[in-house]
Amino acid sequence: MTKWVYGFGGGAAEGKASMKNLLGGKGANLAEMCSLGLPVPPGFTLTTEVCTNYLDNQKSWPKNLHDQVLAALQTLEQQSGKSFGYAANPLLVSVRSGGRASMPGMMDTVLNLGLNHETVEGLASLSGDRRFAFDSYRRFIQMYSDVVLGVDHDLFEEVLDEHKDVCGFEGDTDLAAEDWEQITTAYLQLVEDETGRPFPASPLDQLWGAIGAVFDSWMNERAQVYRNLHEIPASWGTAVNVQAMVFGNMGETSATGVAFTRNPSTGERAYYGEFLINAQGEDVVAGIRTPQSLTKAARLEMGDAQPSMEEAMPDIFAQLTSVFDRLETHYKDMQDIEFTVERKHLWVLQTRSGKRTARAALKIAVDMVAEGLIDETQAVCRIDPASLDQLLHPMLAEGHGRPVIALGLPASPGAAIGQVVFDANEAVVRAGHGEDVILVRIETSPEDIHGMHAAKGIVTARGGMTSHAAVVARGMGRPCVSGAGDIRIDYSKRQFHIAGRTICEGDIITIDGTKGQVLDGAATMVKPELTGDFGTMMGWADGARRMKVRANAETPADVRTASDFGAEGIGLCRTEHMFFDGQRIAAMREMILAQTREGRIAALERILPMQRDDFIDIFRIMGERPCTIRLLDPPLHEFLPHTARDVDEVAQTTGVSAEALMQRAAELVESNPMLGHRGCRLGISYPEIYQMQARAIFEAQGAVKADTGIMTRVEVMIPLAMTAKELKILKGKIREVCDEVAALQGFAPKYSFGAMIELPRAALCADELAQFSDFFSFGTNDLTQTALGLSRDDATSFLNSYIYQGVFEKDPFITLDKQGVGQLLRRAVELGHGARQEIKLGVCGEHGGDPDSIMFFESLGLDYISCSPFRVPIARLAAAQAAITSANS
Amino acid sequence: MTKWVYGFGGGAAEGKASMKNLLGGKGANLAEMCSLGLPVPPGFTLTTEVCTNYLDNQKSWPKNLHDQVLAALQTLEQQSGKSFGYAANPLLVSVRSGGRASMPGMMDTVLNLGLNHETVEGLASLSGDRRFAFDSYRRFIQMYSDVVLGVDHDLFEEVLDEHKDVCGFEGDTDLAAEDWEQITTAYLQLVEDETGRPFPASPLDQLWGAIGAVFDSWMNERAQVYRNLHEIPASWGTAVNVQAMVFGNMGETSATGVAFTRNPSTGERAYYGEFLINAQGEDVVAGIRTPQSLTKAARLEMGDAQPSMEEAMPDIFAQLTSVFDRLETHYKDMQDIEFTVERKHLWVLQTRSGKRTARAALKIAVDMVAEGLIDETQAVCRIDPASLDQLLHPMLAEGHGRPVIALGLPASPGAAIGQVVFDANEAVVRAGHGEDVILVRIETSPEDIHGMHAAKGIVTARGGMTSHAAVVARGMGRPCVSGAGDIRIDYSKRQFHIAGRTICEGDIITIDGTKGQVLDGAATMVKPELTGDFGTMMGWADGARRMKVRANAETPADVRTASDFGAEGIGLCRTEHMFFDGQRIAAMREMILAQTREGRIAALERILPMQRDDFIDIFRIMGERPCTIRLLDPPLHEFLPHTARDVDEVAQTTGVSAEALMQRAAELVESNPMLGHRGCRLGISYPEIYQMQARAIFEAQGAVKADTGIMTRVEVMIPLAMTAKELKILKGKIREVCDEVAALQGFAPKYSFGAMIELPRAALCADELAQFSDFFSFGTNDLTQTALGLSRDDATSFLNSYIYQGVFEKDPFITLDKQGVGQLLRRAVELGHGARQEIKLGVCGEHGGDPDSIMFFESLGLDYISCSPFRVPIARLAAAQAAITSANS
Repeated sequence: MTKWVYGFGGGAAEGKASMKNLLGGKGANLAEMCSLGLPVPPGFTLTTEVCTNYLDNQKSWPKNLHDQVLAALQTLEQQSGKSFGYAANPLLVSVRSGGRASMPGMMDTVLNLGLNHETVEGLASLSGDRRFAFDSYRRFIQMYSDVVLGVDHDLFEEVLDEHKDVCGFEGDTDLAAEDWEQITTAYLQLVEDETGRPFPASPLDQLWGAIGAVFDSWMNERAQVYRNLHEIPASWGTAVNVQAMVFGNMGETSATGVAFTRNPSTGERAYYGEFLINAQGEDVVAGIRTPQSLTKAARLEMGDAQPSMEEAMPDIFAQLTSVFDRLETHYKDMQDIEFTVERKHLWVLQTRSGKRTARAALKIAVDMVAEGLIDETQAVCRIDPASLDQLLHPMLAEGHGRPVIALGLPASPGAAIGQVVFDANEAVVRAGHGEDVILVRIETSPEDIHGMHAAKGIVTARGGMTSHAAVVARGMGRPCVSGAGDIRIDYSKRQFHIAGRTICEGDIITIDGTKGQVLDGAATMVKPELTGDFGTMMGWADGARRMKVRANAETPADVRTASDFGAEGIGLCRTEHMFFDGQRIAAMREMILAQTREGRIAALERILPMQRDDFIDIFRIMGERPCTIRLLDPPLHEFLPHTARDVDEVAQTTGVSAEALMQRAAELVESNPMLGHRGCRLGISYPEIYQMQARAIFEAQGAVKADTGIMTRVEVMIPLAMTAKELKILKGKIREVCDEVAALQGFAPKYSFGAMIELPRAALCADELAQFSDFFSFGTNDLTQTALGLSRDDATSFLNSYIYQGVFEKDPFITLDKQGVGQLLRRAVELGHGARQEIKLGVCGEHGGDPDSIMFFESLGLDYISCSPFRVPIARLAAAQAAITSANS
Repeated sequence: MTKWVYGFGGGAAEGKASMKNLLGGKGANLAEMCSLGLPVPPGFTLTTEVCTNYLDNQKSWPKNLHDQVLAALQTLEQQSGKSFGYAANPLLVSVRSGGRASMPGMMDTVLNLGLNHETVEGLASLSGDRRFAFDSYRRFIQMYSDVVLGVDHDLFEEVLDEHKDVCGFEGDTDLAAEDWEQITTAYLQLVEDETGRPFPASPLDQLWGAIGAVFDSWMNERAQVYRNLHEIPASWGTAVNVQAMVFGNMGETSATGVAFTRNPSTGERAYYGEFLINAQGEDVVAGIRTPQSLTKAARLEMGDAQPSMEEAMPDIFAQLTSVFDRLETHYKDMQDIEFTVERKHLWVLQTRSGKRTARAALKIAVDMVAEGLIDETQAVCRIDPASLDQLLHPMLAEGHGRPVIALGLPASPGAAIGQVVFDANEAVVRAGHGEDVILVRIETSPEDIHGMHAAKGIVTARGGMTSHAAVVARGMGRPCVSGAGDIRIDYSKRQFHIAGRTICEGDIITIDGTKGQVLDGAATMVKPELTGDFGTMMGWADGARRMKVRANAETPADVRTASDFGAEGIGLCRTEHMFFDGQRIAAMREMILAQTREGRIAALERILPMQRDDFIDIFRIMGERPCTIRLLDPPLHEFLPHTARDVDEVAQTTGVSAEALMQRAAELVESNPMLGHRGCRLGISYPEIYQMQARAIFEAQGAVKADTGIMTRVEVMIPLAMTAKELKILKGKIREVCDEVAALQGFAPKYSFGAMIELPRAALCADELAQFSDFFSFGTNDLTQTALGLSRDDATSFLNSYIYQGVFEKDPFITLDKQGVGQLLRRAVELGHGARQEIKLGVCGEHGGDPDSIMFFESLGLDYISCSPFRVPIARLAAAQAAITSANS
């Protein structure tokens, strides 16, 4: 028989902390605290399995649940010494949700359940406070009717307001017991009028109603939205906790509060919290009254007049801090605790690991190692890798004092201030004059790269979290707000409109890429300071991880950033990014427009020295660390001018007629450029391009060797390989250049040769591709696009709805689709290793910086992951956690 | 020790017919004929393995080859009674290529090898014909120098012409023995002048030179082009046959000829061929002299004055026909035979299965079954399924008498005559007046469908064999010439230019989609007549096959054609094709432009009855046969107007402003529509569209049931499924409609529900998709596009070069890429069956009509294949062959 209900109370419990999946976080910890002998009001938990069973079966209760609840209720009555529905000494309970993951406020709660016109009298005489009893009763009716019966909350407020008006009362405190009694009667009438039935008087009916409603609230809209935002699967379900009520509002010896065992903002080791005398828990959260500090030290620091708990209730405070210490030692983590004092008796209502800032998380973890509470491995696992992002980018100061004028998506974290500009060239010009600029575009394209690089931040009106702007900005570490759909950009007038305002070129704005906000004017910023704790933690992580961490970077600035953040190599140097700058794009266009191989070679000759210098810069910075260089990837039409103005300009500079230019551009147009003439297909069609690039690489290697004595570990990577034959052909072409350089310069280049695996066919035929590859690097972006038949640029229009409807649990461009794309990777790894034992395997897609995906890459046994420079620390930590998890499983 | 050389001669041979892969077709059959005791000049064959070994190893000979050739040569000398280089009785040999597959004229040949200034004298005295001997010598020098030494052929012609001029000779026959002797001397001098070395006098040197040159010619450009065209892998290599020379030009008792054992054009059982007295084989092929008929009957029929061989050489003719009969009985197939008569002695030089027209192939196979030569199964395997195409479409008559004005690709077979029109609407208008039109477009789009359907044929200036025009035209059975790159279309003037000519709207042209030609004016056409042999053969095929054959069709006309061609169901009814016609596209656009779900529903309500009527028509035709209906697939922007004129027109009819229209079109624009918001993604975003379609289907089912009593076997198919969740959601939506129809109309629709598997992820997760699918239909077109990351529309620019360079052996859009895409299919079949034993599996991509791919589908055990109506007979036959092959393997 399935056990649906777990009891706790009286120093013992059927559950424990490790049963979080079954009992939810709250239920599991209540059980654990009970077993520890802490003062927890007794109760019982209906498991998450009840929830999923109930929701899967048209809301019918599983067999035996009824009996198990009644049995648990009986135990609860014994433990509390009260009886459900017994007027003389009534048991009142709270009914609360509690899932695996905290979803604060998203689901429903019913308090004071068990009250009716008989038991309220019992509560009145037992508490000796008739006003309290009827106030509790009317709160119960209102809450229950709202949550369970669907009666609009506001109707009750109207009744209350009317009563106050009639009596001339100002606030709730003016109402006496009789007032609440009258209101209670009016409330009951209201419910009957609205629902056509009397309010349920039977506490058992009330209980079942409340349990059903709380389970139902798992599927309410705000819970669904919250789960989507926090990537919590709907399939988890929630548990329901039924617990004896305790009251913090029974006069001046009662109180309620919340506390952290350490400072969640800084991580400092000091009790941290607030409390209210004569109040219910809800009052602290609702913020109606200003709470008081927990400790005297905090009170003094805040300059607070009200006494702290340490001063006002020293005995209880002493009990409380001993609970804090007990719980922190027990859980070995900073705890977030809710408590109530009912007439000098302390009750602990909840404990859980406290949320904290990234900085606090680092400090707490490092401190706890020093305190001997946890070891380094545990410390490494305590930090959410994604949270490190907060520490790496400049941030808006708290109270920055600027109004938000537009909202978009938090596409690339960090904040930036600058003058608004509307085109990439203007951005470069102004940045050249030492000005900070924010590039504002409807959307960006590869032609804007130089402008994005010159800008301090980017705003786009269109595009999602994975749009061109977002991806490139994250790659460059530029803050970016994408898809700010309400702004209307007028390029011709060089201004944009938002909510009736006009912002012109040169006006100052601030953007917060962490929150997706655009602010008017210059907000106050704070620069991140990487603490010693950060370095300590990274050291521990590096000791724990198996996979190497590289960076995707090509400009010297990015390569340096990557190096500073601890990148152990370049995993993806996108050579085409080097082709968009002024002079280069001119030569590139000349190459594209050339009618003959000779014409192309002549144009490429002009690019060669520039590209060689780029490589020299990169190789110098990376020293002994490996550099994977991907040869030209995008289709050629990306390099041609698109607008009429651009065409004219290019026509003038190249001497090619505008008509011929348009003609060539039209020839190159593709219906689906993603699946078009790009990647190594260009290398096969125009081997001279790849040969020029190989020459630049080898000559750079020679130059750096001559200069520093270091032989760069060069890895030449072929994009978009589909067949072994392509690799065979191109390997030969590259070898030719190597031999030529060796013959002409008396320097023998050294390199390894490999393929980017980014097409399903390549993954499925990896054994054959491995014949010609020293390494594979998984291009998971394109592999996701092709395996799912899903264009990253076009998917934004429906991807959110797909995630909302549960088609995907997570955005597959952010977190690898293990089930689909993951199969291709696994197959490619097996086939690759099978064909070539020593083949080196890495990932260079965006997923290389995603902690969840990194866990999967560890399970595949990849040699390295590569991500954008600013994600390198995240990847280092996530790789360490993956190695630890993998070793433990 | 590898055996590189196989001898034959004297009634015995080391090889045999089944060793074609090793010995080439020619070599294997020469060996076989020797063993049969037929009069074959002795010789030996260097295997295809020598070729591949030689080409793979920088043209060095494999070990032991030398010794084996010398040994074979010794045997040959014994068998011929002549000696290589022996002046008194010289052995002369021919050195010919001979691959697995016939590649007529593509590779090089050297004849009369072994001649030098000594042996030529021997030949002269032995033959008693000095003129013949020196003529043979000069021919040898010229041929050898051209093929082996690379001396330009024309230089020899110049020497000859000069000699003729000096002597005042008109033709070659004027030259006497001394003239040829002088010319021989001049030739030898020419070679020494050109190459800097004397012409090789040693017969052995000559032999090795010739063998190398013939192997080299496997890689010459025309051989490569031919292989590409005929899909012959370069890896096969060629064999080389060295054979004693026999001479058909030794006077009036000598002759040479070629013959077929039956008529290769009609299949009639009658010897068929031609011969020349006193001539070499080359003379027949070259067409310098008009050959004579073989039989008296043929001579009489042709009204030929020259005697037939039957009359001129009755004894030899009798010997020959007995050889014919012997070979046909032995090979059990019509043979194509080359023979030479040297001074009354008959020599057979080659036999092979004769090429024949499709009609002849059918007749021969059916006749041979009647003759007891082969059984029905063998007969089924004798017909090249692809050749049936010739029989199904109208064809140009031989000698149609019209000049070719433009060349393009043979995109869809058959011929058509009509007035030139340049837009789809005009095509519909003129066709409405009963006129035949040819639609000429730069390229076509889905908006042109109605015009393509109205036209008799289509010509496009752009696009390959798999362009939109080509695919749609093949689907409709409309002849199409695509990619006629030289025509320049001027839409505004309604004319096109080609080679200095102008063709205006209304002018008559003829197109031959089988050859890719555009002809001026109206050419003579012949309608195909399907003979009784065709029906007989199809009957046998249907008896032999396991897989069902369905058709991809949606218009009643196409469905009827499919039915006439024996389709056993509709495998793919593309509902969007029903949306492009006049009224419908207006409603469709209204739907797309609607801002609300209600607006969309209102527009869909207008489409509903039209779509329902379509289904009623189709269901009536198909009767008891299953119909798979694919719900809307293409992205919505395909339905919006694209040109300014169209926009204005639509604005007028819909009442939506042109600006709003452009705005909406711009919103819907996608970078990669192939990977965009299409397929079931539309169904998830706008369930009302799929629900309308489901309603139309179910209501049509009801109407047909009420009318005919037949319950159509409806299969509702979801395109572009990527996850099981999509199917779950949509299955529910369709079920809702079914329940609604049942409730409202008292008729319970019956249908099965399935998914089109056309994305790699769907194939890899087929076990999950099978949870919600009664059937899978593999959409191999899109699966190829995504697995290979290759857009069908864009690949034409480089796909030819890819095939040319051997990256692909065949166009993966025509013949399934078994290695890559095939893995996905195999996996999906395994997973699908594993999850749902009884799941029905089919293919509905273009590959469903490709014989090679059909063989693979049989090996997967698919239940059916579906192809365009005109390919149904081909598929029936190919499926039968696949079943037979599979049963035999």
